[in-house]
Amino acid sequence: MPKLHWEDFQPGTVAIYGPRLVTREEIVAFAAEFDPQPMHLDEAAASATMLGGLGASGWHTCCLLMRMIADGFVLDSSSMGAPGFDEVRWLKPLRPGTNIRIRVTVLECRPSSSRPEMGLVKFRYEVLDEAESCLTVMTSTSMFGRRQPETRA
Amino acid sequence: MPKLHWEDFQPGTVAIYGPRLVTREEIVAFAAEFDPQPMHLDEAAASATMLGGLGASGWHTCCLLMRMIADGFVLDSSSMGAPGFDEVRWLKPLRPGTNIRIRVTVLECRPSSSRPEMGLVKFRYEVLDEAESCLTVMTSTSMFGRRQPETRA
Repeated sequence: MPKLHWEDFQPGTVAIYGPRLVTREEIVAFAAEFDPQPMHLDEAAASATMLGGLGASGWHTCCLLMRMIADGFVLDSSSMGAPGFDEVRWLKPLRPGTNIRIRVTVLECRPSSSRPEMGLVKFRYEVLDEAESCLTVMTSTSMFGRRQPETRA
Repeated sequence: MPKLHWEDFQPGTVAIYGPRLVTREEIVAFAAEFDPQPMHLDEAAASATMLGGLGASGWHTCCLLMRMIADGFVLDSSSMGAPGFDEVRWLKPLRPGTNIRIRVTVLECRPSSSRPEMGLVKFRYEVLDEAESCLTVMTSTSMFGRRQPETRA
């Protein structure tokens, strides 16, 4: 029985997950597999790019966020997944050696119009560095099972 | 000297990259590292979810797309990266054994208002299966170096 259902999310609620240390080795390994651009692979090449030095692939940052929210609350919830996400912004580079945390803000909760056993929760996710500076921000709506299926009048 | 600069992109142009076979092993390995939800890890557990069977993490699909466009054109271009992306929609599950291709459509090209040596290209990216069904779609704007920096009148 999962701990969190749709009824447990309230707009305005903020939760923080982490920290997690991001190493140079994992940044380079991820880039070699999925995003082999010089700015994610090699310090010398990266210094000549807009990043001004080695930084994680933006996709890597998103994947780390996914893992941290999975461990943080998703795996202990009635989550039914998400249809996608919106407005992903890579604001600042994620540098090797950074301890990241995830700030999750509940923006909106609404019942599903078609499925009484399901509800929707819109979140803002922020990846923060040690100085609470936001490196990446995105919004996404997830589907959760309800503890009490809606009964229509 | 990269082959593609900002001037080489034209609205309406369509390119296809791939195919690339996506195996069960890589789907499970990615999920174990970044998105350990049952629907991405285990056939029996996945059959009870909305996916109706094992399917790749949506983030995995995005990362495969990134790798395929990197090999397809980004690494042979003057790409300066992207500030993020928009409207990612995971429309259908990516199943083990699927040969995916990427369809890239140029939506818009415009000069940078602040940097004469740079231009912006807005793309739509679609992940297609063998039947040309779209599994995932997203849009994103990338920055490219110009072959000829703009000269202001």
